[in-house]
Amino acid sequence: MRTAPDEKALQVGLSLAGELFETIGKRTFDGVGFTRAAYGEGEQIAHDIVAGAARDLGLSVEVDAALNMSVVLRGEDAGLKPLVIGSHLDAVPQGGNFDGLAGVLAGLACLAAYRSAGARPPRDVVLLAIRAEESAWFGAQHIGSRALLGTLDGRILHESRRVDTGQTLFEHMREAGADTSRIAGTAPLVDPRGLRGYLELHIEQGPLLVDKGLPLGIVTGIRGNRRCRRLACRGEYAHSGTEPRASRHDAVFAVSELVTRIDELWRVIEEEERGDLVATFGRFSTNPAAHSVTTVPGEVEFSFDARSHAPETLSRVEAALTREMERIAARRGVSFLHDAFTGDDPAPMDAAFQRLLAEGCRRLSIPAMPLPSGAGHDAGDFAAAGVPSAMIFVRNEHGSHNPREAMSFDDFALGARLMTWFV
Amino acid sequence: MRTAPDEKALQVGLSLAGELFETIGKRTFDGVGFTRAAYGEGEQIAHDIVAGAARDLGLSVEVDAALNMSVVLRGEDAGLKPLVIGSHLDAVPQGGNFDGLAGVLAGLACLAAYRSAGARPPRDVVLLAIRAEESAWFGAQHIGSRALLGTLDGRILHESRRVDTGQTLFEHMREAGADTSRIAGTAPLVDPRGLRGYLELHIEQGPLLVDKGLPLGIVTGIRGNRRCRRLACRGEYAHSGTEPRASRHDAVFAVSELVTRIDELWRVIEEEERGDLVATFGRFSTNPAAHSVTTVPGEVEFSFDARSHAPETLSRVEAALTREMERIAARRGVSFLHDAFTGDDPAPMDAAFQRLLAEGCRRLSIPAMPLPSGAGHDAGDFAAAGVPSAMIFVRNEHGSHNPREAMSFDDFALGARLMTWFV
Repeated sequence: MRTAPDEKALQVGLSLAGELFETIGKRTFDGVGFTRAAYGEGEQIAHDIVAGAARDLGLSVEVDAALNMSVVLRGEDAGLKPLVIGSHLDAVPQGGNFDGLAGVLAGLACLAAYRSAGARPPRDVVLLAIRAEESAWFGAQHIGSRALLGTLDGRILHESRRVDTGQTLFEHMREAGADTSRIAGTAPLVDPRGLRGYLELHIEQGPLLVDKGLPLGIVTGIRGNRRCRRLACRGEYAHSGTEPRASRHDAVFAVSELVTRIDELWRVIEEEERGDLVATFGRFSTNPAAHSVTTVPGEVEFSFDARSHAPETLSRVEAALTREMERIAARRGVSFLHDAFTGDDPAPMDAAFQRLLAEGCRRLSIPAMPLPSGAGHDAGDFAAAGVPSAMIFVRNEHGSHNPREAMSFDDFALGARLMTWFV
Repeated sequence: MRTAPDEKALQVGLSLAGELFETIGKRTFDGVGFTRAAYGEGEQIAHDIVAGAARDLGLSVEVDAALNMSVVLRGEDAGLKPLVIGSHLDAVPQGGNFDGLAGVLAGLACLAAYRSAGARPPRDVVLLAIRAEESAWFGAQHIGSRALLGTLDGRILHESRRVDTGQTLFEHMREAGADTSRIAGTAPLVDPRGLRGYLELHIEQGPLLVDKGLPLGIVTGIRGNRRCRRLACRGEYAHSGTEPRASRHDAVFAVSELVTRIDELWRVIEEEERGDLVATFGRFSTNPAAHSVTTVPGEVEFSFDARSHAPETLSRVEAALTREMERIAARRGVSFLHDAFTGDDPAPMDAAFQRLLAEGCRRLSIPAMPLPSGAGHDAGDFAAAGVPSAMIFVRNEHGSHNPREAMSFDDFALGARLMTWFV
């Protein structure tokens, strides 16, 4: 039995992937984009279609307690640790067709190529279709992979409610058929030490590959984040014409100064120190029930999200934000309140896997570059759990989480080819 | 016939004013504060009660085409131009009991004192109860006095809708019984050149008299304003983790920078140049339908209001705002859109009237100080129409436009006493 599929077999796998992009896209199109709710209808449709295709290939399909799906391709040596390939099948409301799905279908194309060639990889290869990666549905991210790895915070089962239904994560998991009794604890559903590695293909969500004209990227690491979903500045409402500068407690001036300070710190870190950071105040709103053109604003609510590959940069930005809030509060006579900061550590990708992927690109004559991932991915959770992890990024225009995601099938095919070589 | 009321007669007038504060307050209390909608129920209640009290004093009551009410006290010499005293009777939603009402009741106390003493002033004195001064109801301010003086922009009759009912100003005026055919034009309802002057008593809406421990202030001038009700910054929504600094078009960073620049200009004008300015961005909001913690904000809507006694400062601030928007748009790849800037010129109070009021304070041993008015008042419109105008401010805590307005009746009595002396 040969140990790698030939070109013809690879084309069979790619052709299957092409069909499934179309079928799943059609079945989960919502009129504007593609909606695949976590533990909901669209995600389940995608799971059912992938499971059916895997069974048609003669492969066994299993689901774990959190309803993550595994498709196993047996390897030559049952004694070797299995390699996991995969991604997630949920998509944000009115999202694109490729975010998540591309990684699962690349893996399926790889498995189909092996079956078509009658070949076997050196070790077991497990295609994983992960649940509930997107934070858009429950406000919590990477639910499926964290349940699998035993790192899910149990409180969110009852505290997180899905944005469209208002029902808890617990209720949706139960309704979808999950065994919630095995998730609430912290015991992993699979022992991370028993895995050889995790490889995920994903569309790039930033503009770098398009800018450089390269079809593929090899991810060097996934940025960590430091986040606060809700901060508030409380000043004092007053008549805009009569309240002098000296006795004003203006929440808009206060928060604008804070934003501008962090913007300047970001500039220094990026331009002068060549450090890695992105910072975002995504929400910034005076109170619609109380604000007016002629009233000194007494309240602002806002949010904060910082990401970096360097843990020390994340700590530095959080400290700067806290220090500036104290300074501005004292000087302007306002007060700041905020929820606890949350965060994930940066997750570097496995160095040996990166080198191997780069070698694959050379051998297959695929132009590629190393690049960081700004967004979070399930691969970050595998890396954090000690599983050697890697990611292949595929060139994609217009970012992600919108119907204008634009990955060409040719670029996808190069990614699936590289993945198959790697396997 | 004596030409001024004695102390006993003044007490009769003050006692009437005290009763009417209570009656009108009770009848227009909304459970939280005092609501007297412009061309609406609460304002009409106040007009009816004041009219009834004036008739009880044997004085004639008239309303003009815009439903402003005049109560005339005949003077010794019918050949002299009449002096107008008064203020407005509307109040913002859930506002205080004193803003506007205090000026009308001080005038009524003055008239009642004359009637009680059987005295006559040297010239006719007209107590004016003005309609619709507050911009909170129709987004347009000083509607009654501008209709009276022929300076009302006719377009607002059909364009402005009352915030609570959604009906146009035209509809509300018609319903209240106004003769709208005489308001749409620009012919004044009274010839400003035929008036000797206008004197308005009003609670101070800022903190200066409280800070200085003085019961009364003599207003030096009313700040002009430069205002834009709706400005918008359009950037580009993107993933907060993947969009690099260089390719970001972040509307919150852009508008925060704009706000901070104007704050700095204000500091320079006030601290370094000793100029007069207040500036307010009362509304500042990302789009609730599109913003999120992990999305680069693509839109911000905001408002701007600047006030100053110096017309050149208003022009300078508007120019700075425009210039900074252009600069920031170019540098950050965002765009700014805005409605037209509107504004009223600063209105200096009549110098001779100010000297006369200061002399009155000395003669009556009332501690007082000169001070500017940050807020707009009907007196500004009379001054702009060429009528010599003056204002008496009464000490008041907690600002205005809220139920916590706190004017002591003793301070009010000093104001009414000064007004009576002036008359």
